[in-house]
Amino acid sequence: MADRQRTRSLPAQAALRLQLRGPEPPRHNGRAQLDLGPLADHLGYYIRRAQVWVFQDFIRSLASIDIRPAQYSVLVVIGANPGLSQSDLAGALGIERARLVRLLDRLEKRGLTQRLPSPKDRRSHALQLTVQGQKMLKRAKALAAQHEARLADKIGAEPRRLMIGYLREFIG
Amino acid sequence: MADRQRTRSLPAQAALRLQLRGPEPPRHNGRAQLDLGPLADHLGYYIRRAQVWVFQDFIRSLASIDIRPAQYSVLVVIGANPGLSQSDLAGALGIERARLVRLLDRLEKRGLTQRLPSPKDRRSHALQLTVQGQKMLKRAKALAAQHEARLADKIGAEPRRLMIGYLREFIG
Repeated sequence: MADRQRTRSLPAQAALRLQLRGPEPPRHNGRAQLDLGPLADHLGYYIRRAQVWVFQDFIRSLASIDIRPAQYSVLVVIGANPGLSQSDLAGALGIERARLVRLLDRLEKRGLTQRLPSPKDRRSHALQLTVQGQKMLKRAKALAAQHEARLADKIGAEPRRLMIGYLREFIG
Repeated sequence: MADRQRTRSLPAQAALRLQLRGPEPPRHNGRAQLDLGPLADHLGYYIRRAQVWVFQDFIRSLASIDIRPAQYSVLVVIGANPGLSQSDLAGALGIERARLVRLLDRLEKRGLTQRLPSPKDRRSHALQLTVQGQKMLKRAKALAAQHEARLADKIGAEPRRLMIGYLREFIG
């Protein structure tokens, strides 16, 4: 992880710091405690840092089956709504149409999803999981539940519940 | 916005849905209300959706000066800690070293930041804003404050304060 990297050549930097801006700042876990300026009061900054943490942990949690966060979301929503259209899926997940097409191309190549022709509209598709896709989703859900439990441990049950309520605001 | 896209050919889809899984699901703002399955109880899902909202609003807010979220964070932290090293900056923001190098290359090409040689360690740099970078940061901070005010309006002052406290957990 980049944020675990240790600083090289502390004496030289300390000397430079003394010259440029006074004494060495306090360190925590070998890392300089820098002044974050207005970032320290930007909710968006904390949301971004949390999202990076969540993605890293999620990707590690599902690495054994090579399913990434957006792929997981797509599998879950197709699994829960078989026959849905690409437009509805894109709308539900807030994914751009072009990106969703690339995601579905990859899942289809792995034999996990299929785009059936819509019986009445040649411009539309009905999305479904294959049998293999259903098996994969089952394994993915179990691993994702472990990830979510770690997240709950980290943040606490009540803050987790409150945050889900607050963050719903950003959807739709 | 992808999530504002309207569904094509509703009658055809409705027919397919009836055939595949029963009646048309309820719609809200012209969008199908799909079953999100376990995503609806994943805090990570809501954090990701909120982060996408925040980035879109931030990018729009600073479009007139062409400063993106990561560029803003880098300018703010260099501005608040002149002379800091790339390692310390990467550590403070949780950015991978290689990505930070690309970010700094672009900011330097625009004349906003500079990497001065460290007087005692040839392998290290001391980062600073140029005069132009300082002016740009001042404008960026004003626009970012407007973005943050919109975010506070959307979520409410007390939830905003609570969330900053909870989300600190994910840093460091």
